[in-house]
Amino acid sequence: MTELAAAKAALKTQAVETPSWAYANSGTRFKVFAQQGVPRTPQEKLDDAAKVHEFTGVAPSVALHIPWDKVDDYTALAEHAEDRGVRLGTINSNTFQDDAYRLGSVCHPDAAVRRKAVDHLLECVGIMDATGSADLKLWFADGTNYPGQDDIRARQDRLAEALAQVYERLGEGQRMLLEYKLFEPAFYTTDVPDWGTAYAHCLKLGPRAQVVVDTGHHAPGTNIEFIVATLLREERLGGFDFNSRFYADDDLMVGSADPFQLFRIMHEVVRGGGFTSGAAFMLDQCHNIEAKIPAIIRSVMNVQEATAKALLVDAEALAAAQRDGDVLGANAVLMDAYNTDVRPLLREVREEMGLDPDPLKAYRASGWAERIVAERVGGEQAGWGA
Amino acid sequence: MTELAAAKAALKTQAVETPSWAYANSGTRFKVFAQQGVPRTPQEKLDDAAKVHEFTGVAPSVALHIPWDKVDDYTALAEHAEDRGVRLGTINSNTFQDDAYRLGSVCHPDAAVRRKAVDHLLECVGIMDATGSADLKLWFADGTNYPGQDDIRARQDRLAEALAQVYERLGEGQRMLLEYKLFEPAFYTTDVPDWGTAYAHCLKLGPRAQVVVDTGHHAPGTNIEFIVATLLREERLGGFDFNSRFYADDDLMVGSADPFQLFRIMHEVVRGGGFTSGAAFMLDQCHNIEAKIPAIIRSVMNVQEATAKALLVDAEALAAAQRDGDVLGANAVLMDAYNTDVRPLLREVREEMGLDPDPLKAYRASGWAERIVAERVGGEQAGWGA
Amino acid sequence: MTELAAAKAALKTQAVETPSWAYANSGTRFKVFAQQGVPRTPQEKLDDAAKVHEFTGVAPSVALHIPWDKVDDYTALAEHAEDRGVRLGTINSNTFQDDAYRLGSVCHPDAAVRRKAVDHLLECVGIMDATGSADLKLWFADGTNYPGQDDIRARQDRLAEALAQVYERLGEGQRMLLEYKLFEPAFYTTDVPDWGTAYAHCLKLGPRAQVVVDTGHHAPGTNIEFIVATLLREERLGGFDFNSRFYADDDLMVGSADPFQLFRIMHEVVRGGGFTSGAAFMLDQCHNIEAKIPAIIRSVMNVQEATAKALLVDAEALAAAQRDGDVLGANAVLMDAYNTDVRPLLREVREEMGLDPDPLKAYRASGWAERIVAERVGGEQAGWGA
Amino acid sequence: MTELAAAKAALKTQAVETPSWAYANSGTRFKVFAQQGVPRTPQEKLDDAAKVHEFTGVAPSVALHIPWDKVDDYTALAEHAEDRGVRLGTINSNTFQDDAYRLGSVCHPDAAVRRKAVDHLLECVGIMDATGSADLKLWFADGTNYPGQDDIRARQDRLAEALAQVYERLGEGQRMLLEYKLFEPAFYTTDVPDWGTAYAHCLKLGPRAQVVVDTGHHAPGTNIEFIVATLLREERLGGFDFNSRFYADDDLMVGSADPFQLFRIMHEVVRGGGFTSGAAFMLDQCHNIEAKIPAIIRSVMNVQEATAKALLVDAEALAAAQRDGDVLGANAVLMDAYNTDVRPLLREVREEMGLDPDPLKAYRASGWAERIVAERVGGEQAGWGA
Repeated sequence: MTELAAAKAALKTQAVETPSWAYANSGTRFKVFAQQGVPRTPQEKLDDAAKVHEFTGVAPSVALHIPWDKVDDYTALAEHAEDRGVRLGTINSNTFQDDAYRLGSVCHPDAAVRRKAVDHLLECVGIMDATGSADLKLWFADGTNYPGQDDIRARQDRLAEALAQVYERLGEGQRMLLEYKLFEPAFYTTDVPDWGTAYAHCLKLGPRAQVVVDTGHHAPGTNIEFIVATLLREERLGGFDFNSRFYADDDLMVGSADPFQLFRIMHEVVRGGGFTSGAAFMLDQCHNIEAKIPAIIRSVMNVQEATAKALLVDAEALAAAQRDGDVLGANAVLMDAYNTDVRPLLREVREEMGLDPDPLKAYRASGWAERIVAERVGGEQAGWGA
Repeated sequence: MTELAAAKAALKTQAVETPSWAYANSGTRFKVFAQQGVPRTPQEKLDDAAKVHEFTGVAPSVALHIPWDKVDDYTALAEHAEDRGVRLGTINSNTFQDDAYRLGSVCHPDAAVRRKAVDHLLECVGIMDATGSADLKLWFADGTNYPGQDDIRARQDRLAEALAQVYERLGEGQRMLLEYKLFEPAFYTTDVPDWGTAYAHCLKLGPRAQVVVDTGHHAPGTNIEFIVATLLREERLGGFDFNSRFYADDDLMVGSADPFQLFRIMHEVVRGGGFTSGAAFMLDQCHNIEAKIPAIIRSVMNVQEATAKALLVDAEALAAAQRDGDVLGANAVLMDAYNTDVRPLLREVREEMGLDPDPLKAYRASGWAERIVAERVGGEQAGWGA
Repeated sequence: MTELAAAKAALKTQAVETPSWAYANSGTRFKVFAQQGVPRTPQEKLDDAAKVHEFTGVAPSVALHIPWDKVDDYTALAEHAEDRGVRLGTINSNTFQDDAYRLGSVCHPDAAVRRKAVDHLLECVGIMDATGSADLKLWFADGTNYPGQDDIRARQDRLAEALAQVYERLGEGQRMLLEYKLFEPAFYTTDVPDWGTAYAHCLKLGPRAQVVVDTGHHAPGTNIEFIVATLLREERLGGFDFNSRFYADDDLMVGSADPFQLFRIMHEVVRGGGFTSGAAFMLDQCHNIEAKIPAIIRSVMNVQEATAKALLVDAEALAAAQRDGDVLGANAVLMDAYNTDVRPLLREVREEMGLDPDPLKAYRASGWAERIVAERVGGEQAGWGA
Repeated sequence: MTELAAAKAALKTQAVETPSWAYANSGTRFKVFAQQGVPRTPQEKLDDAAKVHEFTGVAPSVALHIPWDKVDDYTALAEHAEDRGVRLGTINSNTFQDDAYRLGSVCHPDAAVRRKAVDHLLECVGIMDATGSADLKLWFADGTNYPGQDDIRARQDRLAEALAQVYERLGEGQRMLLEYKLFEPAFYTTDVPDWGTAYAHCLKLGPRAQVVVDTGHHAPGTNIEFIVATLLREERLGGFDFNSRFYADDDLMVGSADPFQLFRIMHEVVRGGGFTSGAAFMLDQCHNIEAKIPAIIRSVMNVQEATAKALLVDAEALAAAQRDGDVLGANAVLMDAYNTDVRPLLREVREEMGLDPDPLKAYRASGWAERIVAERVGGEQAGWGA
């Protein structure tokens, strides 16, 4: 198989999971601008996600967020998904929106609150059993806002204890993906602020505890691809929450703020075997002011383009230049791939997959946008709070 | 008058304006944790603010936010304030919470939206006429989230046009205070991202347009006291929105994240004549997880402590060491003042003002916290949205 | 003329000034790794710069740094340049490497040191008269390392006084370009830390005082293209010092760290008329570990590629989408241009200019690299210190 | 023993190691400003360090840097130190100033360079045997400047291999302290950029491999005390390289940029048992423009003051407020300690130790500064390069 053929094959089997909540309303602390046609139920979110998969061909699964996507019958929900051509993916827990969690959840000083939080996490594993989801993604908003507010170290002990209980509950084929985040909503300390902390906890839990890299959760200047390479080397890269940022956790469309960074990340993924290691590729974005479904399609395409470029890197030439200490030559090999316009290649890939080469145009032509505006009238639009 | 006596005199006449919205509920995009006893009306916010002034003696005025503090009769509201021992202060506009403002307000591509925004600003000047407020504080959430989304330069033209209309409407003794902010809620560009932009607009408007420094609105590493010194030198420092931050615009209690920075700012204020230049000293904070009134009292005290230390700097010794190029000596003079425990001095100042030397203890003993919890039952608690 | 033809025409007349010191040795505070073949004299630097122009066709002038490029006879130096096909460009002053400047130059507390610094600046204007250079570029390392070390405000007064003396000395057709820098080598305050400070000084001096944007001199998260757009709108953009950075002032090859940012900057340059406004496009880089001449050729090519993409933006479609508030559509227009592979276009442009389409390959084939290694033996290699 | 007595006892036994190179010349990439009286030999550096200990009483050991402090006879050097009342401390390696290290040392693509680097590290362990030093401190300047320049992951493999060789060579009672640094001198990737990477390597090596926290080596916004608490919890805190920063690795006097941060770090040290865990407290600073010995005395005093405040935290009251979820109360307990002026306490401590209560005044009165200026004439002043 030629390199181009190999690249095409890889691109055809790529899978980007989209998050149910990205189809719902979102905003900043200042304002949530509601959009017309936004889903009102988990089922409607799946309907929208199915459209993204229909036109891109590489978004086959949908992450759920509990309790935002809580339903009585997960089997029925899974069937609803299947009917639309997608499946249920990662289960995301929520331990930050109950009044009890003002000072934290699994790290809270009060054991009763910790119990409540752990119970929720265990409930999520139960939902995984029902949905057949393989991954539990844990992001904790836990932290403190003021120096002295709580005992930083004791909070780590509480965290470890909670994680252990949940890890133990995991069934066969189930993983725990632990996310880290520098700040927000906590403003002095976050209890899992960096990959090192997540990694240290995962090490103690066992091989099925893995680290998730959210591309928006780092301090300015952090080299994310280094972390990706390191976690792959340590066999602890659980996956990605893709989005992009100029400042803080802006949650913009992945690749929109720094497409070169996304390419460098994908280069390390390719280099480190991340496409076959079981790492999950998920979006975690907020489309506050732009149309949601097209923004998600665009995001999936951005991931595809970065991946295509990474697959086109001439690995042999790169290794040779690196071996020779040819700084400019090695950099040039990488840049050659980055500077390539891969959109024609991706159009080809889509056509070979039986898809329209232009997913956004096809989506617009489908009438779905108009239909959901017309049909989704009344009821309560889904958002972060519901 | 001895230096200590001068410091005491200055401390007794200090005035820190508290913002009505800090008494109301606030939170992050993830969750607003409601607190018991939170005000339901502008009047109740004033009642709380009056308590802060009662126990600190240096918080005589209250900033209003329109429309959050909209009432039918501003004369009655001013009387309500006066009855409680405070007065109405700066009027803050809001051009970010109406659905029309999804893509901006005074910088919006659509002239109708700009008109709406300007009308609101003019309405605010009308309210100033009614309340006797001297200052109109303008913070614009305007900006873009994605490269290319709008024409950066055209937005500046629109901004300039809107500001000119409002400036022209100002009555005698009224000022326009223009705030800048690096990011949030816009994530790619903000239309007034830095002091330079605010300054450039103010220059063109005239002497009554001045720049407001919100201590949480800068890029990491920005030397805020340099900006303060520069704006004072340029006679364009309109005032402060005090708060503190570890990461982004965290809006924590002023002085809680970096008390040394607050001291350095106050040192430049003292050095540059900022206490007599007409600069306004305002708080702009969010007490998301801590009790609001005590947090505001604490914040006022933090400003007092930083001010007291700045007033104690031995200006003569400092100037001599600076003149001599004595790096360590000059730094030591500054640090001597900073390392001084000024709490005893402030207790004295309070006693001489007829106040309890410990404002927080006195507040707790007053029973106000219990009373508002008991009395403010039913109705709708005030928050950022109302 | 079609748009493509217009783009080609613009690309053919583009001019990127290369700095004499980039051909010399440079390094970090930890180590300067000397390279073979590095120039030993200003003349040899010009010889190297001429090679960059020979192979790119768009690097016709060379910036000098005084005293590093001090010679007895500037007319002869200008002739040397002309003989090689280039000309002398901007004169850069140096007020940071004399022992007297430990605590600053034009902002130093001691008037004698300030006098010395101003005399050097006036000497530089004299050199401009001799070389026919139009621009005096001023970067001041002035600042303080410790709070209290010197009077921040008095330093501004001293700076203003010094600048006024130099501005007054400028001859017809000469400009003063004032550079700002957040930090380094000063670590607490820099006396011209941001564009606002530079702009405020320029305003007072007059229209021939303009601001220089060094792309590596900002706080993390600063939106540089916004500053570019603003300075163009204010008619105060004197030019660029191009380089790139991941962390601080890394001085890497322009476009190597964030090619998308460089494109966005060029888009604002095109939008704001920066190619006809007299703005100077200069490199200011350090090639610490990579071969210098090829790195500079590569940098010039990076500027060309970003420019070409910016010229290909469909301005009409962009304006229409922006007018319609079509966030995704407007962003897509910009990204379409960015994602275009402009290397074939630039190869065409070069061929039409009578150049080899691949400047780097042509340079390598020229034997120059081997020749300078063989010939430049003995003597003292040029570096930042000489 | 009362709490105050316990604090005093702890302060009397505190030990801060000073680095030999801080007594020598240093600077930025722009300029090294030489100072009069600077040591010319390792012995003279020890003489200066002995003065710091003589006047502070808490700086009993001196870190050496190889090859800057290379001597023929380390036993004689140790005796020289002992004669002056100090002892030799940590051995610091240098794998960044040899021409071979242009592209790295232990991570270099060329095995011969790696061999050379490892040999140097083994040589350092040999010196430890001779000097009786317990700790080998490893800081690697290794990294890359450009994306693609080298294989990030392969560099980790090479690093691991080198570290294993050195770890194996450690004798009884000897430790390896691995330092991390975000950037500089490498500008794209650093091979040990963060505590997580250092920690992961240490875990694999064994218990005598520990992480060093240099307070200037983090991304903006990083919560350093969180890392300290975490490493203590993991029993992997090898020690500190103290200094302070406003922007990058400014290497200013510890506590001069953010004294509150230093206090918070010391609070976590006290909380986590860091004074008895074997953690080393070292300075690593550059006194580029200020007098070196007084700056080091001042730095030691800054550490003492932060420590004293941390020791005065009312641990019981703090724990109670934390347990109760009293955000403001818990913060207030911490701030009470921080706001205390501990200088009188430290004067007492010094008097009880038989020292002058004012170390800086005593140093100035000692005539040492004048003596070294008079005596150290001729020869070559020590600096980073020698």
